[in-house]
Amino acid sequence: MAKLTEIGWEEFERLPLEAKKPYLENGEIPDTPFHTLFAQQFDRELLERLARLANRIRFMAKSKEGAMYLKSLLCHKRAMLYFSQPSSRTFLSHLAACQILGLTTGSVRDTAISSEFKGESKEDSIRTFSSYFDLIIMRTPEKGLAEKMAWELSNSSRPIPILNAGSGKDQHPTQALLDIYTLLRSFENKGGLRNRTVTFCGDLMRGRTVRSLSYLLTNFENIRQVFVAPPQLQVPEDVTAILAAKGVEFTKSDNLREAVTLSDAVYMTRIQDEWDESKGESAKIDTSRFKFGAEELKLLPAEGIIMHPLPRRDEIATCCDHDPRAMYWRQMRNGMWIRSALIAMTFGFEKQIMCFGA
Amino acid sequence: MAKLTEIGWEEFERLPLEAKKPYLENGEIPDTPFHTLFAQQFDRELLERLARLANRIRFMAKSKEGAMYLKSLLCHKRAMLYFSQPSSRTFLSHLAACQILGLTTGSVRDTAISSEFKGESKEDSIRTFSSYFDLIIMRTPEKGLAEKMAWELSNSSRPIPILNAGSGKDQHPTQALLDIYTLLRSFENKGGLRNRTVTFCGDLMRGRTVRSLSYLLTNFENIRQVFVAPPQLQVPEDVTAILAAKGVEFTKSDNLREAVTLSDAVYMTRIQDEWDESKGESAKIDTSRFKFGAEELKLLPAEGIIMHPLPRRDEIATCCDHDPRAMYWRQMRNGMWIRSALIAMTFGFEKQIMCFGA
Amino acid sequence: MAKLTEIGWEEFERLPLEAKKPYLENGEIPDTPFHTLFAQQFDRELLERLARLANRIRFMAKSKEGAMYLKSLLCHKRAMLYFSQPSSRTFLSHLAACQILGLTTGSVRDTAISSEFKGESKEDSIRTFSSYFDLIIMRTPEKGLAEKMAWELSNSSRPIPILNAGSGKDQHPTQALLDIYTLLRSFENKGGLRNRTVTFCGDLMRGRTVRSLSYLLTNFENIRQVFVAPPQLQVPEDVTAILAAKGVEFTKSDNLREAVTLSDAVYMTRIQDEWDESKGESAKIDTSRFKFGAEELKLLPAEGIIMHPLPRRDEIATCCDHDPRAMYWRQMRNGMWIRSALIAMTFGFEKQIMCFGA
Repeated sequence: MAKLTEIGWEEFERLPLEAKKPYLENGEIPDTPFHTLFAQQFDRELLERLARLANRIRFMAKSKEGAMYLKSLLCHKRAMLYFSQPSSRTFLSHLAACQILGLTTGSVRDTAISSEFKGESKEDSIRTFSSYFDLIIMRTPEKGLAEKMAWELSNSSRPIPILNAGSGKDQHPTQALLDIYTLLRSFENKGGLRNRTVTFCGDLMRGRTVRSLSYLLTNFENIRQVFVAPPQLQVPEDVTAILAAKGVEFTKSDNLREAVTLSDAVYMTRIQDEWDESKGESAKIDTSRFKFGAEELKLLPAEGIIMHPLPRRDEIATCCDHDPRAMYWRQMRNGMWIRSALIAMTFGFEKQIMCFGA
Repeated sequence: MAKLTEIGWEEFERLPLEAKKPYLENGEIPDTPFHTLFAQQFDRELLERLARLANRIRFMAKSKEGAMYLKSLLCHKRAMLYFSQPSSRTFLSHLAACQILGLTTGSVRDTAISSEFKGESKEDSIRTFSSYFDLIIMRTPEKGLAEKMAWELSNSSRPIPILNAGSGKDQHPTQALLDIYTLLRSFENKGGLRNRTVTFCGDLMRGRTVRSLSYLLTNFENIRQVFVAPPQLQVPEDVTAILAAKGVEFTKSDNLREAVTLSDAVYMTRIQDEWDESKGESAKIDTSRFKFGAEELKLLPAEGIIMHPLPRRDEIATCCDHDPRAMYWRQMRNGMWIRSALIAMTFGFEKQIMCFGA
Repeated sequence: MAKLTEIGWEEFERLPLEAKKPYLENGEIPDTPFHTLFAQQFDRELLERLARLANRIRFMAKSKEGAMYLKSLLCHKRAMLYFSQPSSRTFLSHLAACQILGLTTGSVRDTAISSEFKGESKEDSIRTFSSYFDLIIMRTPEKGLAEKMAWELSNSSRPIPILNAGSGKDQHPTQALLDIYTLLRSFENKGGLRNRTVTFCGDLMRGRTVRSLSYLLTNFENIRQVFVAPPQLQVPEDVTAILAAKGVEFTKSDNLREAVTLSDAVYMTRIQDEWDESKGESAKIDTSRFKFGAEELKLLPAEGIIMHPLPRRDEIATCCDHDPRAMYWRQMRNGMWIRSALIAMTFGFEKQIMCFGA
């Protein structure tokens, strides 16, 4: 097996994502991630295993007995949530996932109160966290940082797993996992996640969730992808290049209503103006036709679903919120379950959970 | 039973407080609140049930066995503390109450690090919290927000209870509960909370605790209320109108010493200058005669007590702190016990706790 | 036994440190601290008892069974971390120590969100914390504050222990404990902590860790101390006066390389420019010869060790990090173990832990 201790950082950094994957696995448990850094680590089999584990955890958590069993599993472990980029949703979802499994937690959410002002390097900060905790969940605006930290820790005397909760513009793997889990659950008793049309709409250029989900969908049979966006915010070439290389059918469009009528899932996204290079840049783009409202709801097939990674602004009108096809609230809660599943799996508790009560 | 799912928001909002009460009850446990939004939800019977439950929890927490039993009750639940208005006291008191019952917690205390800057509505934020947690404890400077959120959640697919830890200038129900609990404890073996004179002193216009406590005291037999304040900060008309309507004896005064000599309880309050409309407004008011010091201590009857919701500035001189009649430290700790009792009751554990060891 | 309730604050404050010691002991458990305020409370016997307890906790924490036993010990207690001076490292280390023993925690890390803006005194804030918690761990830039608070609490109706996690420029006792523990562990199977040369290097004037460690080392037989610093940052006279009075051999030097060749331990420190009286003051000092790099590593004896309280800037080159003599990462983790030991001892669990599995 490939090991991070046997490869230098610069050599590792240069590898294509798929070649990096084996380096991130748990040496002791086959086909299981140790560090979770990018969506490309997850193939269909692993996604389906995670979904089954999340289902199981969700079911167990309904009874006090099951909930207490889950809480006993990792009650001897501590997790550090290091969020140098603001995000209450992702923070709370990971926090709840830890609490479900009994992990106690510490957090640094505001770098102003951290040691960094005393001139410490990020590498030293991570070593600090690894001194006191058994898992680091990190979110950072800095591209590639989670990867670097994973390499550093694996090459330290205290190699503990890194879980990337968003790193720069490019990777947010657990968001992609919860999206896939939501699709798997939604179509579970309706023929499964195959032969479907998934429409992405909004800021497809900068949304890292679109990038990751588009990739993960290529693991499933015959999923057509439709990208609906203003020209300035269309999906980047490198995303569609992957689809083309894998022979996945896709279309670009600027007509949301037309796309909706043919969709099994419509994945709406927010204009990510926090990444604007000059202030107000995004405000100049006409996004009025890229919103989901009462009209779009009428056009959506009866078994279609609406998704959104949240937070939303006005991309989805609140009048859609109570429609049974609005899946975004459940999608959010799915995040908690799939993150619990991932953490449990990382620490080798998959089997124990799957066998509970059997 | 009245249900929040059967009434529109605007219609509900317009109801008088007393008519709102049945909508906030727990459908499955009679005479028990589900959402706790305002002091008017609590009648004498419920106040006394809560006090008995708080006494029981306080007693159990003294032994490790009892403490561990309490911690097992809600160990499968998670609470969210959403404090967009600063308050370390109220925050820590609720936190401790949760911890006593075994709830794990998450918190958002500084809106600057929340998702709100991405343009999310408060309704969506609350839906987010409800996705990951089983109880929301919220404090906000915005009047009526807790009520709106309770209605929203009860009308969502995940109806969980809201506990109002302070909402605008008007409501802070758990403060009123801890005040009543302190009075009940103080007079427990001295004839009970009846035939008493309670004096309020300080900023009676803006202190929401005065408003709530004055109301709750009308539940008890023959409690005279004396309001001592500078004219600009006297108790508002709507508060005394309620007393008049219920036939409760009350007086307004500007002479603290005179009032103290006749009081069973003196409830001091701080000048709430954070609500000043123009800066320094409060500083112009002469408050020098509305402070409790060594002289007042001499005038207070031997069985009288001094209360304060804290934090204090100089309304009570520190030389009073060690007097056995100074009840404000115990009052603060009572807050933790009564909040534990309220949360335990909300989740249906009243009976189980009352029967422990029986 | 001396009691804080039997001495006034001003009289207590004036006592020399050694005379204060008996006032801080736990009345019920002999030779055990109740409040931990300064390094001078710890003599050799107590240091060695703490180190044995920390070793035991560290060993037990390796197994899930042991970890769960530890977590059961103080699961009925709550600790407050009150950090009005930023420090993520010290914060997280104490947090983890609490979690190891099962304590739940609350924290105030940013005074901006605390009640203090409402004009509350620090004494009242501490009384608040003591209302809800069973232990207060505090860090403050204000000299002597932890001591004052310990006196206040011991004279209140709810006397709970204060653990000083850094108070002003002068005291940071648990840092000194972890330093001693690291030295004890490092020389455990090599003849013990006696007949050694310990070199301090860097900002010896303002580093409170140097001050405390230098003092504690006088408890051990024949430990020579070497102080290497630029003249402006040399160790203060009062530190060396203590050494002289105790007959401890010491030298001042400005030659790190020479000192390294003769050292059993080299204790590097950071320039503490946050205490600069005028901005940029420290930047004018030439510190280039007071850094540990590849050259110094070559000169260090084979059994010598390198320590640093962290965070570091460039005082130790990262090329030293993987050398087996670099003890600073382990030193950091030792902080968690020794703090666990101290808290367990404070609450009277020393014997129970030492007997586990026996």
